[in-house]
Amino acid sequence: MASMNNSFIDVVGLCGSLRADSINRMVLGLAGQVLPAGMELEQLEWVCLPPFSADRLADAMPPSVITLSERIRRADAVLVVTPEYNFSIPGMFKNMLDWLSRVDAQPFAYKPVAMMSASTGPLGGARVQYELRRVFQFLNANVLNKPEVFIGNASSKFSPEGGCIDGATIQFVAAQMLALLDLLRQDSGR
Amino acid sequence: MASMNNSFIDVVGLCGSLRADSINRMVLGLAGQVLPAGMELEQLEWVCLPPFSADRLADAMPPSVITLSERIRRADAVLVVTPEYNFSIPGMFKNMLDWLSRVDAQPFAYKPVAMMSASTGPLGGARVQYELRRVFQFLNANVLNKPEVFIGNASSKFSPEGGCIDGATIQFVAAQMLALLDLLRQDSGR
Amino acid sequence: MASMNNSFIDVVGLCGSLRADSINRMVLGLAGQVLPAGMELEQLEWVCLPPFSADRLADAMPPSVITLSERIRRADAVLVVTPEYNFSIPGMFKNMLDWLSRVDAQPFAYKPVAMMSASTGPLGGARVQYELRRVFQFLNANVLNKPEVFIGNASSKFSPEGGCIDGATIQFVAAQMLALLDLLRQDSGR
Amino acid sequence: MASMNNSFIDVVGLCGSLRADSINRMVLGLAGQVLPAGMELEQLEWVCLPPFSADRLADAMPPSVITLSERIRRADAVLVVTPEYNFSIPGMFKNMLDWLSRVDAQPFAYKPVAMMSASTGPLGGARVQYELRRVFQFLNANVLNKPEVFIGNASSKFSPEGGCIDGATIQFVAAQMLALLDLLRQDSGR
Repeated sequence: MASMNNSFIDVVGLCGSLRADSINRMVLGLAGQVLPAGMELEQLEWVCLPPFSADRLADAMPPSVITLSERIRRADAVLVVTPEYNFSIPGMFKNMLDWLSRVDAQPFAYKPVAMMSASTGPLGGARVQYELRRVFQFLNANVLNKPEVFIGNASSKFSPEGGCIDGATIQFVAAQMLALLDLLRQDSGR
Repeated sequence: MASMNNSFIDVVGLCGSLRADSINRMVLGLAGQVLPAGMELEQLEWVCLPPFSADRLADAMPPSVITLSERIRRADAVLVVTPEYNFSIPGMFKNMLDWLSRVDAQPFAYKPVAMMSASTGPLGGARVQYELRRVFQFLNANVLNKPEVFIGNASSKFSPEGGCIDGATIQFVAAQMLALLDLLRQDSGR
Repeated sequence: MASMNNSFIDVVGLCGSLRADSINRMVLGLAGQVLPAGMELEQLEWVCLPPFSADRLADAMPPSVITLSERIRRADAVLVVTPEYNFSIPGMFKNMLDWLSRVDAQPFAYKPVAMMSASTGPLGGARVQYELRRVFQFLNANVLNKPEVFIGNASSKFSPEGGCIDGATIQFVAAQMLALLDLLRQDSGR
Repeated sequence: MASMNNSFIDVVGLCGSLRADSINRMVLGLAGQVLPAGMELEQLEWVCLPPFSADRLADAMPPSVITLSERIRRADAVLVVTPEYNFSIPGMFKNMLDWLSRVDAQPFAYKPVAMMSASTGPLGGARVQYELRRVFQFLNANVLNKPEVFIGNASSKFSPEGGCIDGATIQFVAAQMLALLDLLRQDSGR
């Protein structure tokens, strides 16, 4: 893991929602604020990729997919924060994963991945994460087992400006980032 | 169920793949050929809907979503035939479901739904169907339990022109359509 | 549905836990107290069935399995209330289902089934219910889609004597029983 | 990993079926025959553990559970080979996991785990493995992502004496054992 020799550990953040004021984007922002020393988080602004189909892929891999895949491949780890739509993965986010899965040197292979989800309901996305884990198993990522982070009733835990006003949530998110660091250290020791 | 009084039972077919020569589209075509008497299948040509986001929805529901939802609501049943992408639902197909879930009078509520999947590998989509069942549970559809139809090694079972050349596959598909008819009759008897 | 002509609708309750003071058993008790008029709930006391194996089955079906299956088959509906063990179905409860699945005239076929789960943690069993739904799909039951009932932080919602002290929980449980009655009426109208 | 300094890598095998002539037990036997050099497999003969309940646990942890947990903890890796019962984990096998999860120093934590499943039907257990992965996620095991091994139509691939007569199956099983060795080497390098 190259960056272990550098000044910081490089984590890229992917938000599953396209909404500007998405609570899940706020969670990603919170994660960036509570990182362990030496870790940095860059939230990737994913523009909408074109609809995936094998026909379109046969034409050409879109340059935006290649650029995104290169940034992910270069990172030391990935943090996904996503809402749950209809008990499953948001379609456009899955479309992005469908594209990335078809790049040469698929970028999630062996990559440490952590995930969180937030919802306005009580369960905090308890269904979407297990589906996402299965997708990342297929992509051969190294997904963090624990701690899981489900942020239920999330609209009461963030201010309209996006700051987290719930101490327990801040601690949960910070604890997962520490666990991700630990997973990365195990990896780099290999 | 209005159409029970009419001349035929109206089933709409949704294909999870955008690919022109999709094997799953061939399966949908096969289903249309082996329907029980009195049942008709119209394969809906879904153009790509825009990327779903709550922001875009707040602007306006796209007319194409409304048109699609009305056609589905009018149908007596829905048949979904979908590939599996990365162990889960194709992103663009899920994006379509994400849109449809937000229409007033959500069209899948109480709607009888059958599903099939085909893949070039041996399992025939054994993972995607369970995820799709959970989405349809959320949408409160009436999903057919059995028989499940998984078409593995599918490329050897259809000719390049799209005709099915495997007798067992033809029988499986026909058996599910009969079971769907049975489910519809139970519904109409309510 | 024979009992629709009789004085009451007959629901049998199965608890997934063997523990005497199980909170899930308390939930089953609560369900019995908030039934719609005309519905009755009998909680089945399942003794531990022997370990299922095909060898033992080849010897003989245990009489306790046959007795249990006959009681379930005679019921108009089944209510399952279960804890989640290790993100999945309690082993001994699954062993009971494994036995019941092998009885001639499998008792869950077409049977209306509702399910609830309670846990001391926040999610209330959000994982076990989806696994249980898949088992009941295989058994061809008619599982209620909605409302789902997950009772998180359950130890704060019941008194040590087993009475529910949380108004919202009482309402959730009562709402599901009403929905089950509605499903039964649809069935009997067939 | 202590045994890396010893003469061999120590893998324990758990079979999900209690049946004497279980095909899954034959698969476990096959795995033992195609191990990479330096790896050994001991198939654990699990006798039936008592029915798990918190009440019984409060009395005492059964000695058989402690013995089993110590053997697993001592191993370098675990191989699970299990049938699928009713689309999910065999109840008695889950009961064993329920017990093991409650031992102090839970034995699956950080343990490399590989899994296979065999069935007489075509899918080879495509549903049970994902449920088992989720259980092992909870137990914080290090589950091998790939290659997955699903042995469909298994009764045609083994002789009555238990020998494998299908070359592709032998290769699949051997490939997974090699991948498990690779995962172990990564672990030991940490």
